[in-house]
Amino acid sequence: MNQVKPAHVGYFFGLSVVELAAQLRTGRVTSVALTQAALDSIERLNPTLNAFVQLDAPVALAQARKADELLAQGRDLGPLHGIPVAVKDNIDTSDYITTYGSAHFEGFRPRRDALCVQRVREAGGVIVGKTLTHEFAYGPTGDRSLQGAAHNPWDPRCMTGGSSAGSAAAVVSGMVPLALGTDTGGSVRIPSALCGAVGFKPSYAAVPLDGVFPLSTSLDHVGPIANSVEDARLLFEVLSARACAPTIPEPGTLRVGWIASGSFGPVDTAVDQQVYLTAQQLFGDTLQEVTELAAVAAGMKETLGMLQRAEAFDVHAERMQQAPQLFDPEVRARLELSQEVRGWQYIRAQAAQQQYQAQMASLFECYDLLLSPSVPIIAPAVNAREVRVEEQDIDVRAAVLSYTSPWNLTGLPAISLPAGQVRGMPVGLQVIAAAGEDDRLLQLLAHQKPT
Amino acid sequence: MNQVKPAHVGYFFGLSVVELAAQLRTGRVTSVALTQAALDSIERLNPTLNAFVQLDAPVALAQARKADELLAQGRDLGPLHGIPVAVKDNIDTSDYITTYGSAHFEGFRPRRDALCVQRVREAGGVIVGKTLTHEFAYGPTGDRSLQGAAHNPWDPRCMTGGSSAGSAAAVVSGMVPLALGTDTGGSVRIPSALCGAVGFKPSYAAVPLDGVFPLSTSLDHVGPIANSVEDARLLFEVLSARACAPTIPEPGTLRVGWIASGSFGPVDTAVDQQVYLTAQQLFGDTLQEVTELAAVAAGMKETLGMLQRAEAFDVHAERMQQAPQLFDPEVRARLELSQEVRGWQYIRAQAAQQQYQAQMASLFECYDLLLSPSVPIIAPAVNAREVRVEEQDIDVRAAVLSYTSPWNLTGLPAISLPAGQVRGMPVGLQVIAAAGEDDRLLQLLAHQKPT
Repeated sequence: MNQVKPAHVGYFFGLSVVELAAQLRTGRVTSVALTQAALDSIERLNPTLNAFVQLDAPVALAQARKADELLAQGRDLGPLHGIPVAVKDNIDTSDYITTYGSAHFEGFRPRRDALCVQRVREAGGVIVGKTLTHEFAYGPTGDRSLQGAAHNPWDPRCMTGGSSAGSAAAVVSGMVPLALGTDTGGSVRIPSALCGAVGFKPSYAAVPLDGVFPLSTSLDHVGPIANSVEDARLLFEVLSARACAPTIPEPGTLRVGWIASGSFGPVDTAVDQQVYLTAQQLFGDTLQEVTELAAVAAGMKETLGMLQRAEAFDVHAERMQQAPQLFDPEVRARLELSQEVRGWQYIRAQAAQQQYQAQMASLFECYDLLLSPSVPIIAPAVNAREVRVEEQDIDVRAAVLSYTSPWNLTGLPAISLPAGQVRGMPVGLQVIAAAGEDDRLLQLLAHQKPT
Repeated sequence: MNQVKPAHVGYFFGLSVVELAAQLRTGRVTSVALTQAALDSIERLNPTLNAFVQLDAPVALAQARKADELLAQGRDLGPLHGIPVAVKDNIDTSDYITTYGSAHFEGFRPRRDALCVQRVREAGGVIVGKTLTHEFAYGPTGDRSLQGAAHNPWDPRCMTGGSSAGSAAAVVSGMVPLALGTDTGGSVRIPSALCGAVGFKPSYAAVPLDGVFPLSTSLDHVGPIANSVEDARLLFEVLSARACAPTIPEPGTLRVGWIASGSFGPVDTAVDQQVYLTAQQLFGDTLQEVTELAAVAAGMKETLGMLQRAEAFDVHAERMQQAPQLFDPEVRARLELSQEVRGWQYIRAQAAQQQYQAQMASLFECYDLLLSPSVPIIAPAVNAREVRVEEQDIDVRAAVLSYTSPWNLTGLPAISLPAGQVRGMPVGLQVIAAAGEDDRLLQLLAHQKPT
């Protein structure tokens, strides 16, 4: 759907992992060549985009050489074998410094890989570097970290969104074909939507969080960022250590709901129209309007806030006491507020989360998929905290989270797909499925052709 | 071990449920006769002890008549069939008003029986009335409730301890042979120890809490109060809906640990010596001193406090906002403090609870049973809040909870056995077993003869 290119693009722009995997096996390319291409693209584009925060060419190339040797010996580890992959810097890697985007961890090298990274390595993936995360993933704008702000490949004056800021910028600009992100309120889907990538937040607990720096353990997820649903699915299979079932023809017509515009907060009308148009192209013009979510939106937001704040402060209490000056001021201000959540409010939020999960399970008895814009606005300027939408000044952080965070609270699988452009910037269509229906969601979308 | 009687005793003093069950089956007594004996005893003793807060003779006698009719038809519901049982007033009964000890629920009649009450009825037990609970079970002294204070059968100037104040007084004085209590920090074992009953707190979740007014859901337990381990075991089998396995001869010698005196706080030396003597009589003089608990006592107390306060405020937040004046002032003051626990502190307390549970599991790899005084002092005067112990003024509420509450935090089964007297008042020996070893604990004690 993207007919135009970002201003600056790298080697992997427009390439699919499936094609690359085929070329690796015919010997037309090598993993070393692909990894060198990634490193060259990063060298050229990163001064503009600030997507990567840690690189180590010898480390990356050594992995690539090993992948080539194994393939040459006939040991094929699967579709990711030899493919360059970027990893968000809040995910532990034993061979790259991992800062979690914070001065608290400047120069820190974890002793072990995160379990999800280990799985990528076991599947033959080549980790080419670490991508910028908003400090401790505690922010949806991607512009506050030890390493500064990431910049949007479509217009570097604009934010990428976050917190998986660098991963989305790296994939969209073609520095790498695949990246790992994390998503606690939308942190995979928001930068994917604002930069024009496919970003998938799986069902809660589908991908293990061992070795991922926690933000909010009730809401944290790991997921892939890619250029196509097919590629995202390949990486998800590896991350979740399960093979998606082969495609099963769906009986009858899909029941697809369009979440009534504005249900979760203000939407830029042009974004809404562009996303709805894309939804109709994919699913036909029989979308049913789903009106019941507006009534629960405020409660869901409040509940998610209570859980996230209490859990985030639990993680950072000692740092807030011992070295508060090392936090970015905006992140520190959020943590100061987080301290105030009371124990009884947290208990009630846990109970409310279960109720919302039950309500969504009921709703999905009537629908196969629900659709909405992933993010109700286009990427604002880096560091912007207010934007004017439909003659209202709205808070950027609240706005970008508003349509994604309900699916962290309820743990449902949700994906952001590129849905064309508004005023020259990408917008995303969010597609949500019932809990545990990750495979089916990815299969339906991989095989859905615009009508 | 009690060679003397309380000042005032009722019909069931010194009678065992096993004997009564035999007499019911030979026709020597009827359930109606036993129930009438209970009502007569209550009528005579209750003005002094204030153990029962709700009675309804026709309701009780109708249950008894039904029990007699069933037995006459040859339908024997088991060992509790026709036996009078008292129920603590924080446990729902559809046929008796249930106030939870609070002016907030004056005259309240639940629509349904609690599940544990339903099980007693299905086993043929006759509910003869409701016993005094400290308001909302939120206090270990048994002297603050809508219905005032309960009084100790051994000296009515003294407190019973609580919160299952009336249940312990009713059983010890012989008003009824069995009663249900609840235990969140010691509320079954404390009044059992201070009044001279057998009080058993089962493993966490061994008895369902449906229909029991919550105090702190991580710590709440339901358990029996009786005059012997054998009787407590009969009621526990019914409450937990499982039959204890028949006694298995224990291979070798029991490994019994004595928790080093003072580990969980100050102890009256005379109480300590009397309880230790009883422990030696029961288990021989090979008790091993367990010294490692003193180091974790403060942390366990702090953890339990965080959980209990946050969870208690969750239960009462609306009442505290809308009608705080209806609470007893002391209970209200506790709730005001409870509001202050932070969400992140609650999360850490949950994690700490799991660690203490794991530590106790390790400790019980070295021991079959651990022993301590149930309560480190004898019953103080009703309403006393400080007592002088070993030339120190100590807080009564903290003291009576100090040796029982660690086993609520860790969820281990713990029983208080009568262990003789100190200065004319009963003291209790607490026996603790590994998680899930409820049946074995009860069997070991039922068959343990003084050496």
